[in-house]
Amino acid sequence: MYKTILTELHNGILTIFLDRPEKMNAYTEQMKDELMDCYQKADENDNVRVIIVTGEGKAFCAGMDLSEGGATFASDEGMENYRDGGGQISLVVYNLKKPIIAAINGPAVGIGLTQTLPMDIRIVKPDVKIGFVFARRGIGPEAASGWFLPRLVGIGKALEWVYTGRYIPTQEALGAGLVQYEHEQPLEKALEIAKDIVDNTAATSNSFARQLIWKMQGTKHPYTSHLKESAFLYWAGKNADAEEGIQSFLEKRKPEFPLKSSDLPPLFNEQKEASE
Amino acid sequence: MYKTILTELHNGILTIFLDRPEKMNAYTEQMKDELMDCYQKADENDNVRVIIVTGEGKAFCAGMDLSEGGATFASDEGMENYRDGGGQISLVVYNLKKPIIAAINGPAVGIGLTQTLPMDIRIVKPDVKIGFVFARRGIGPEAASGWFLPRLVGIGKALEWVYTGRYIPTQEALGAGLVQYEHEQPLEKALEIAKDIVDNTAATSNSFARQLIWKMQGTKHPYTSHLKESAFLYWAGKNADAEEGIQSFLEKRKPEFPLKSSDLPPLFNEQKEASE
Amino acid sequence: MYKTILTELHNGILTIFLDRPEKMNAYTEQMKDELMDCYQKADENDNVRVIIVTGEGKAFCAGMDLSEGGATFASDEGMENYRDGGGQISLVVYNLKKPIIAAINGPAVGIGLTQTLPMDIRIVKPDVKIGFVFARRGIGPEAASGWFLPRLVGIGKALEWVYTGRYIPTQEALGAGLVQYEHEQPLEKALEIAKDIVDNTAATSNSFARQLIWKMQGTKHPYTSHLKESAFLYWAGKNADAEEGIQSFLEKRKPEFPLKSSDLPPLFNEQKEASE
Repeated sequence: MYKTILTELHNGILTIFLDRPEKMNAYTEQMKDELMDCYQKADENDNVRVIIVTGEGKAFCAGMDLSEGGATFASDEGMENYRDGGGQISLVVYNLKKPIIAAINGPAVGIGLTQTLPMDIRIVKPDVKIGFVFARRGIGPEAASGWFLPRLVGIGKALEWVYTGRYIPTQEALGAGLVQYEHEQPLEKALEIAKDIVDNTAATSNSFARQLIWKMQGTKHPYTSHLKESAFLYWAGKNADAEEGIQSFLEKRKPEFPLKSSDLPPLFNEQKEASE
Repeated sequence: MYKTILTELHNGILTIFLDRPEKMNAYTEQMKDELMDCYQKADENDNVRVIIVTGEGKAFCAGMDLSEGGATFASDEGMENYRDGGGQISLVVYNLKKPIIAAINGPAVGIGLTQTLPMDIRIVKPDVKIGFVFARRGIGPEAASGWFLPRLVGIGKALEWVYTGRYIPTQEALGAGLVQYEHEQPLEKALEIAKDIVDNTAATSNSFARQLIWKMQGTKHPYTSHLKESAFLYWAGKNADAEEGIQSFLEKRKPEFPLKSSDLPPLFNEQKEASE
Repeated sequence: MYKTILTELHNGILTIFLDRPEKMNAYTEQMKDELMDCYQKADENDNVRVIIVTGEGKAFCAGMDLSEGGATFASDEGMENYRDGGGQISLVVYNLKKPIIAAINGPAVGIGLTQTLPMDIRIVKPDVKIGFVFARRGIGPEAASGWFLPRLVGIGKALEWVYTGRYIPTQEALGAGLVQYEHEQPLEKALEIAKDIVDNTAATSNSFARQLIWKMQGTKHPYTSHLKESAFLYWAGKNADAEEGIQSFLEKRKPEFPLKSSDLPPLFNEQKEASE
């Protein structure tokens, strides 16, 4: 159905391949639409426990397709109405209720790299080219990276990388926290982490944790977190996941959690959180 | 007086031992009440300059006492009224006006680890078991850890550790900033840092700094910090601590700061800060 | 014209030397006034693309000049009106629209170190003395460092360094992210980074990125960043910098960006951002 991406679903793990290998998986408007559609459907599908994004072929994503040349970013929508497509994807990823892992199997430049920032875990193949090259193209940080990047690497590294637009050695990226792992086979490592999550943890716990940790960013006081955690813990204390989790632990066996991601009641008010 | 904790006060350093060694110092409702009482009294007692928390015996704290099995988290208070006990402790620790150090001398799991996050310095014995295991028990992050954890280790590590619930090698914890030190004798190292603080720094400075740095989290603009710092500096410029600090420096001798923690005027509005 | 600082402007790089070498460049009221004036003029001068701050002679800045002894911080302005001078400089640096780099060529203590925190990149000479010594002088964090420091190094390191007031080994500072580089010749390294920025990136991109990344701190939701980035990208899509950036990339030549920093329209509302 999709033209620019491919998907595979096995054992609760949805793997999405960016699939324009002849163009180093360069980002297009169509890819944006297909990714957003795919993410939203995955979020609603209880058979999907973890999402992995990787690239088909040798690249992860070489950035924006620049085949339109200098006019690539030209638009007539007006400044008030124009919305950066990368940011639209990032907001969808931000709102996901499932763990999402980027397996950066090759070059990831510009939107190829910023689109991974709202994901939870990034795994990079050693020595591939990655960078926030915007300043060298006369444009600026996008995909809401002005918000995400400093939260991952601190403000010092964020500023240096964005100012210079230089390529970032993957070892430096690891040290700064931009990626959590360097691995020769990023997809294999991603599948290993995803399998650990699927086999051993509760979908309701993951869904709650993802919303909690991202949405406490920028709050002033731990009380906000305390209230959300109390509500979840009260709900969990009455459901079968917590009972199974504790019983399996006491019986020293693997848990078989009965609930699904969609069983989690809505504990976060989207509107309120976004209004700031 | 306390049944689940032991305290020792020497030379301005209050050491609190979690004291259920036969149960690996597992957390109970009573321990919560006693810790909260103990922290609040320590905060009001000018003889206490620094607080250290450690475990009696081989463990730091093995997590929630699960002797009630699957019903451990069941409650009839209603979702609106129920409050996570770990979070109640965390909020008390957050509001302390004195440095507090965790000497993690053995396993620290679940609430055993999250209760240390609102403390200022964490020292861990190499290779002990630590982890945020909640997702493996069908529950979720608590003790306001959704707020504290990303501020210590960045959002990438926070999410990975919480999703998988895996044990965290202490070397990885050190690299990510979850702990500041690995040390074979965590209590000894904690006492060394505490002694440096007691011997060489002003109680009023420490009390101001603790409130300032925690309470500027989540603020949008450095102006907020500038106003608080200006108020403190104006006050300090008229008191005997600043004078002694500068004189002792110019005379190349140790300072003898005359003021007490309780001499610091209230510069932070608790209510306002929490209302967000 | 200035008495406590010296400036040099070559090829778009303004180098400011703190210039009281006989006093280890200790900070005075006059230095504050001159730095603030110099920063503000540099921000308005389109010939300045990058600012570097370093020390004349062997020190970077040994902290506040304490020649007035215990009365150094005494003031009669009243707590409501008194403003920390270091914080006033920090707010000016925070509002700059150009990259600014600290080349810490020697000891940097107290205000000597905190004045570098609102800068973007810090480079330190190995093994020089640096530290947040305030608690040892009976005073507290200033120059809005309560806000800046945890954003650079995380809250754990920030608290430990501020409580103890100890000297920080430069290797530890590097590991924690307080500085991005250790280098035997900090000014040379700073000039190398500045030249890379001047030669290869657009002034409008840098100006936008600096405001974006600092001003998204403390915001709750990535949507805020998305709106600012969309506005900038829309504007860039109609101007000559983006066109030149993409054309030069496609033609595999160095870009020659035609626009100046002052061409960037105001996209951030100062007042609104500060009102929190």
